[in-house]
Amino acid sequence: MATAPSIVRTVAELRRQVAAWRAAGERVAMVPTMGALHEGHLSLVRLGLIRADHVVASIFVNPAQFAPHEDFDAYPRGEGRDAELLGQAGCELIFAPDVAVMYPDGFSTRVLVDGVSGPLEGEKRPQFFGGVATVVAKLLNQCGPDVALFGEKDYQQLLVIKRMARDLDLPVEIVGGPTVREADGLAMSSRNAYLSAEERATAALVPIVMAEAVERLRAGLAIEAVEAEAAARLEAAGFGPVDYVQAHDGETMARLGPGPVGAGARLFVAAWLGKTRLIDNWAV
Amino acid sequence: MATAPSIVRTVAELRRQVAAWRAAGERVAMVPTMGALHEGHLSLVRLGLIRADHVVASIFVNPAQFAPHEDFDAYPRGEGRDAELLGQAGCELIFAPDVAVMYPDGFSTRVLVDGVSGPLEGEKRPQFFGGVATVVAKLLNQCGPDVALFGEKDYQQLLVIKRMARDLDLPVEIVGGPTVREADGLAMSSRNAYLSAEERATAALVPIVMAEAVERLRAGLAIEAVEAEAAARLEAAGFGPVDYVQAHDGETMARLGPGPVGAGARLFVAAWLGKTRLIDNWAV
Repeated sequence: MATAPSIVRTVAELRRQVAAWRAAGERVAMVPTMGALHEGHLSLVRLGLIRADHVVASIFVNPAQFAPHEDFDAYPRGEGRDAELLGQAGCELIFAPDVAVMYPDGFSTRVLVDGVSGPLEGEKRPQFFGGVATVVAKLLNQCGPDVALFGEKDYQQLLVIKRMARDLDLPVEIVGGPTVREADGLAMSSRNAYLSAEERATAALVPIVMAEAVERLRAGLAIEAVEAEAAARLEAAGFGPVDYVQAHDGETMARLGPGPVGAGARLFVAAWLGKTRLIDNWAV
Repeated sequence: MATAPSIVRTVAELRRQVAAWRAAGERVAMVPTMGALHEGHLSLVRLGLIRADHVVASIFVNPAQFAPHEDFDAYPRGEGRDAELLGQAGCELIFAPDVAVMYPDGFSTRVLVDGVSGPLEGEKRPQFFGGVATVVAKLLNQCGPDVALFGEKDYQQLLVIKRMARDLDLPVEIVGGPTVREADGLAMSSRNAYLSAEERATAALVPIVMAEAVERLRAGLAIEAVEAEAAARLEAAGFGPVDYVQAHDGETMARLGPGPVGAGARLFVAAWLGKTRLIDNWAV
């Protein structure tokens, strides 16, 4: 029977607990989150327990990765429920700092990752990956875990974080966890909570349309034709705008095409459904 | 009698030695350098030994902090002499990585510090502080020291590194060491080796002119008049161009003036003498 995790709000308390585990020769995993937890996050906690003796989860809705017009204020929050779910999954410690702990007066440092952050989300949300890289560098330095886990649902983010951790020599292993899906295939996301019942039914088309596009790519059809057809199908079903349906290299994020895909391709989608923006990706 | 320090060139070797010290409950200090060592660096090693049980020095001429027209190729290098001096000062371990260890293929992360990096060197050498913040973040993450020491001769750099370490929550204390001067007052600098005998004699005017300017500021004279007079005296003596003689706040680097200085002011100078650029600073 899992016990309720401790919740700490300062770096000193976080470090004290992690140091105690370290002193006992035990390994520590970290799962950074923005709360509003679902099975995707919890699967990362369970994955962390395979890699380490203890799992720390952070809950911090990071203002630096939202643009002014985005949904920072509306982003779902519910610490009590999150803590209960984390405890059930085996997480022992929650780090839930205030904004003033993370970004005190005078804060003025940015971590920027070029290359893998360029296309897709980097084009559509120009401040996003800088905000992510900066806050994740902070969280990893605050906690000092042996391993940190991030979902492949945000695949480009995972690549940016891996690149940042390697480039800055953070002494931590970055591990991606597979995307967890609803029964109808929709990728779990905190933002799914924004969908109306009707939109939720329509959203199930994303994995269907994209799975068929992946099959067409595997069959050797031209990338640009497959992308255009998938985007058109989503738009016809009521999605709009479709920010992108694009095949990129799964390591470098280089744009693929024209022509058929080679090895290591990945197909990415971002599309709006009403006021909700859904993203997802598949290995080709 | 000091023994010769070990020289390691990979992060794995560096971490292995530091981990062994850590496992014995011992504290580690780091002194990052670009080699070409002088008494200023060695004083930091001795200061490190007061704060910790072991001192690691790094020797790495960091290409990322030089602009294409600057003196990266000409920068003095001499590992054998540096190692001997470090050993005499009590340093036990030298980390001297190749460029390919620090910046392998695909490297694409930058650490940028706004605010304190803005004026003075930030204006004159736009790529400098980004290069410094990035390489120091890497070195500190590679070594994981308890304390790291930097000279106050590069005062603005010290502030940038303190800001970066605090903002990114690096688990290390950043300590500044006082500027070490030659008998005639010239601040020790690896770049003094560029000076001809005649230039070296002229260079001694910098501390004389600046000490008098500091006295005038303390006497309540207007900052802008004191700065202009000091710059004119340096130019009359053969310096040129004088990049700046400017008073700034010693914590925020805010530009001071017009009028008399308040508490916490610092006077900064950068001036060329032939092909050599000298910088220095004084508390007012």
